[in-house]
Amino acid sequence: MIKCTVCGLREAFYVRRYSGEKLCVKCFLESIEGRVKATIAKYNMLRFNDRIAVAVSGGKDSTSLLYILAKIERDFPMASLYAITVDEGIMGYRDEAIEIASEHCRSLGVKHFVTSFKELYGYTLDDIVKRIRFSGSRLTPCSYCGVLRRKALNMLAAKIGATKIATAHNLDDEVQTFLLNIIHGDFLRISRTGPSFDEEEPGLVPRVKPLCETLEKEVALYAYLKGIRFQENPCPYAGEALRNDVRNMVNRLEEKHPGTKYKIYRSAEKIRGAVKDKSPRIPLNQCKICGEPTVSDICQACNLIQNI
Amino acid sequence: MIKCTVCGLREAFYVRRYSGEKLCVKCFLESIEGRVKATIAKYNMLRFNDRIAVAVSGGKDSTSLLYILAKIERDFPMASLYAITVDEGIMGYRDEAIEIASEHCRSLGVKHFVTSFKELYGYTLDDIVKRIRFSGSRLTPCSYCGVLRRKALNMLAAKIGATKIATAHNLDDEVQTFLLNIIHGDFLRISRTGPSFDEEEPGLVPRVKPLCETLEKEVALYAYLKGIRFQENPCPYAGEALRNDVRNMVNRLEEKHPGTKYKIYRSAEKIRGAVKDKSPRIPLNQCKICGEPTVSDICQACNLIQNI
Repeated sequence: MIKCTVCGLREAFYVRRYSGEKLCVKCFLESIEGRVKATIAKYNMLRFNDRIAVAVSGGKDSTSLLYILAKIERDFPMASLYAITVDEGIMGYRDEAIEIASEHCRSLGVKHFVTSFKELYGYTLDDIVKRIRFSGSRLTPCSYCGVLRRKALNMLAAKIGATKIATAHNLDDEVQTFLLNIIHGDFLRISRTGPSFDEEEPGLVPRVKPLCETLEKEVALYAYLKGIRFQENPCPYAGEALRNDVRNMVNRLEEKHPGTKYKIYRSAEKIRGAVKDKSPRIPLNQCKICGEPTVSDICQACNLIQNI
Repeated sequence: MIKCTVCGLREAFYVRRYSGEKLCVKCFLESIEGRVKATIAKYNMLRFNDRIAVAVSGGKDSTSLLYILAKIERDFPMASLYAITVDEGIMGYRDEAIEIASEHCRSLGVKHFVTSFKELYGYTLDDIVKRIRFSGSRLTPCSYCGVLRRKALNMLAAKIGATKIATAHNLDDEVQTFLLNIIHGDFLRISRTGPSFDEEEPGLVPRVKPLCETLEKEVALYAYLKGIRFQENPCPYAGEALRNDVRNMVNRLEEKHPGTKYKIYRSAEKIRGAVKDKSPRIPLNQCKICGEPTVSDICQACNLIQNI
């Protein structure tokens, strides 16, 4: 029997290649929860009296995040936790995920709020995809979905009086986004994306990413070990081609050189710090159509909806 | 016949995927020479009266660079051009390359200077590799070769009174190095590597990279079309594993998404600018053993040689 290198007692079931640790189930689970707590503390993500809205899609990351935050929240009686979900309107996919999310919230005793593209914008994502495919637009379903979902989450969080939105982006997501921004040459976005985006902006609920220092595969392992049910099918509109290529390439590098993802993550942190000081802060306006915060006159979401 | 999109006259033989241009041989060759001139101008790499030492290994990049610089130099009567080569002592490989380099210099009328590891350090690279393999050192041949060659080039350039060293790093090299520095989390090196490293440092001949904005495959094509003879065999000590992985992954991305390499290059430029301002300039000392410039007491090369 190979013993756990943390407790030295129980049988190890998992080798953390980047650190060399061999972990038993108990120590593995504790290490994930400890990592999330450390990430929250490191970036000052949460205050003792925050009203936290966790963005729950029903996938492994967001269901695990809600589970862990519900556990942590017990120690903070002044804080409160809610789950928020956006129903994009993807038949046969999102409806199933929302079912799972709702059940998960019920079992954790967390109040669950749902909004939808249909209700907010008049179209489901399925409607939008039909129209863009018909019109031959070069925009992908993801480019619509990302913008519209971000706005929907902000609106719902504001409506329920949340002081933070917690999203379940993991370390892999962060590393991919950083590299994508480099590939796109999107200098400003490098400074704006990160573990927490907490500059006070009127109308914008600050966002935090408590899983941003945890590997995707370890989040998945956590969910499996805890028996958390989640939506396993991928979105029928698939992902962005370039992000998939970047994901594969980073996974190959990590496979051959364990620790690569953490190294890239730390470089991103340093570069973000240096870049931030050089980027002027752009004051936000109110969208002339919907009133939501935006850098231009009309927000991206209203712009997209107008041109469908 | 598909016509060249630049001259509109001759038959195109090459499609530049990232720009959509279709080029005839003449316009392709001119575009490469024009790009090198533009790079030199953009980064202020050369002055009208520089004594330029081109580091020539005998490979496609350095023989092409010497060829192009010899052509450009004709318009600058106050400038002078030399070729310098370091013989690392790799039997059956470098000896052949030096032969090629010498012949190339003769045909261009460029004076050629050669130094060697054996002469400077007392060991050939073959000697060093035998010893590190015997001792079970974790250092690779490349890590010795890189440090020792850099010092040798600087010493030889200083000896012949050169005011610049031109190396033949191409766009692919630059992009790989940038990503490797990110993967290694080497923040300082991101600010220090780049198209030209021209901070005045006593004892250090400033280095410039006139091919740094030209794709590797276009440099190779230039050499083939010009009938330049070069060493085609790879170094028997192969490359660094991680760099090879990064090269493959960037090539795959470029294949699928033409223009990716240039995008990463431009991001690297921007990030370097931001990082540079945050990095304190470290004053150089003289190595207590050899007198060459170093950030510590003893330079990296002397350190390595002492521990062989």
